[in-house]
Amino acid sequence: MRQRLSVETYAKGVLSGDRTTLSRAITIIESSLAEDRTLASQILQNILPHTGNSIRIGITGVPGVGKSTFIEAFGSYLTSLGKRVAVLAVDPSSKQSGGSILGDKTRMEKLARDPNAYIRPSPTNLSLGGVARHTREAILLCEAAGYDIILVETVGVGQSETLVKGMTDFFLLLMLAGAGDELQGIKKGIMEMVDAVAVNKADSGNEGAVAQAVSEYRQALHLFPETASKVPVQVVACSALEGTGMQPIWKLISDYHAQTSEGGFLQHNRQFQRVDWLREQIRQSLEDRFYENAEVKKYIASADQAVRSGEKLPDEAAADLINLFLSSEQPSKFSAKS
Amino acid sequence: MRQRLSVETYAKGVLSGDRTTLSRAITIIESSLAEDRTLASQILQNILPHTGNSIRIGITGVPGVGKSTFIEAFGSYLTSLGKRVAVLAVDPSSKQSGGSILGDKTRMEKLARDPNAYIRPSPTNLSLGGVARHTREAILLCEAAGYDIILVETVGVGQSETLVKGMTDFFLLLMLAGAGDELQGIKKGIMEMVDAVAVNKADSGNEGAVAQAVSEYRQALHLFPETASKVPVQVVACSALEGTGMQPIWKLISDYHAQTSEGGFLQHNRQFQRVDWLREQIRQSLEDRFYENAEVKKYIASADQAVRSGEKLPDEAAADLINLFLSSEQPSKFSAKS
Repeated sequence: MRQRLSVETYAKGVLSGDRTTLSRAITIIESSLAEDRTLASQILQNILPHTGNSIRIGITGVPGVGKSTFIEAFGSYLTSLGKRVAVLAVDPSSKQSGGSILGDKTRMEKLARDPNAYIRPSPTNLSLGGVARHTREAILLCEAAGYDIILVETVGVGQSETLVKGMTDFFLLLMLAGAGDELQGIKKGIMEMVDAVAVNKADSGNEGAVAQAVSEYRQALHLFPETASKVPVQVVACSALEGTGMQPIWKLISDYHAQTSEGGFLQHNRQFQRVDWLREQIRQSLEDRFYENAEVKKYIASADQAVRSGEKLPDEAAADLINLFLSSEQPSKFSAKS
Repeated sequence: MRQRLSVETYAKGVLSGDRTTLSRAITIIESSLAEDRTLASQILQNILPHTGNSIRIGITGVPGVGKSTFIEAFGSYLTSLGKRVAVLAVDPSSKQSGGSILGDKTRMEKLARDPNAYIRPSPTNLSLGGVARHTREAILLCEAAGYDIILVETVGVGQSETLVKGMTDFFLLLMLAGAGDELQGIKKGIMEMVDAVAVNKADSGNEGAVAQAVSEYRQALHLFPETASKVPVQVVACSALEGTGMQPIWKLISDYHAQTSEGGFLQHNRQFQRVDWLREQIRQSLEDRFYENAEVKKYIASADQAVRSGEKLPDEAAADLINLFLSSEQPSKFSAKS
């Protein structure tokens, strides 16, 4: 399991679309070992010129809305059109449960057997920020491996949907008919992020409730400010279970993609996302370096104690620890390039 | 305006309860000038042994719920009991508006003229994190100046109430009768933070709606997990306009304070808050030092450009900038104490 290949072998394998190598490369980027981080960085650098050619679609919705069933149906529809589809997940709960929303792929049995689909469960035992970084990197690897469409699944409760919004081109919210927003636990603010709403479970016999929900969401969306892309937010019905409504959803996403590519918003948005990612990476790395520093490790418990007891101000304790950190970081470590 | 006094003059003035010196000391802690930060740190260090003796009360509620009127009525009730009351504000919108929720104190005319009350508007032109730090420090100064009760006002929309929760002993949510939670714009999660709910505008003629709201909130609160303090969350009615309901609110807060002091939760919670503040301070200071670093300033625009265009990975750009930062920080700057 711990065996590593050369950078070239990983890069070549990924670029040739080899699924086993792709999986092994994703395992490398998910690793927190220092050697693996270096290797990951080199692999990514190698494949970077071959990335960016997919449509990145974020899919959110509360548990019970039928996300897995939807992805199975939508993914299968896309592969039937000749597309290659990769499915990734950002699952904030996987840390606790040790599992993943995509679990053992049994929830997407058909898609998991499809040679033109690639399903990768959410990495476990990582912070939300960690999951976000690894998912961004996994998107690049999947693109280099020739996947045309990347579906990034997330549960719509918490901060994960902001992160997924920040790494995708199009953000789709799945909703149910007949359950109030309140019941669906959709957090405020999410409606302002979405590019389309799909009312799921438009199954036979449920058409009335779905039609009403579609009309309600359409009306509600009039109250929101225009999206950054200036493309109006669409509301459609679908039945993931019966596989209906997939064509209209794909049409609106591909229209969106064509329109925003032509107008430049797509590129502009991706540029913005990359700089945002840099800022987040700086914040995260600064904290990692700080808390891993030997001197900081030595003195942080006593600083905590002095602050906890109220004998020292947090401001002063922080300044002391930061000076300790900055003065003890070995200059030999630096390899900065201008 | 820019004249500064000695550390001893500030500390002595604050400890003697002199309002003018208190205001000037708060101005120092709000300043972002390096000399002022040093001075602020010294003043705080001097007064630190005289802090912690107040009841810190956070008050939140959406605009329109009557927060200012409530604070005017509640503050006046407290001073009538012989208490000395300080009012601070955490206002995330002040950055944009350049103003403050407390404005020119005209919204609390009576309290502003009360010799036993001290009102300090929210600092302007600061980030939310900055406002939070300065408010925490202003609490300490007000305590040193002999205020028994500190009221920290915030609008209940966004992240500010989490920050205020993190610096107070008791968190009071003001609500209205007859407006659904949805309408009131109270964000999900806030109910789990509160120690009491006061249904305001129980004005003459409105008693029925208020009684119903009180009963509804009581029922709703049964669905929430027990609070960390294990003290049950109370729901009461009040009319800030007519000044009714102030006594029961004060009774429940002072009972809460007595109970949590005796049981040790109050002290435990404050210790936790201080360590939390240290972590936040470390995060903030690391970023400040980084972005103020001359080498970082020199190269960040080109790093942004390389990342924006997609020619460099955020991971690598961040690592380069951080190495540049760590290797260029002058060792002479350090004055760390073990």
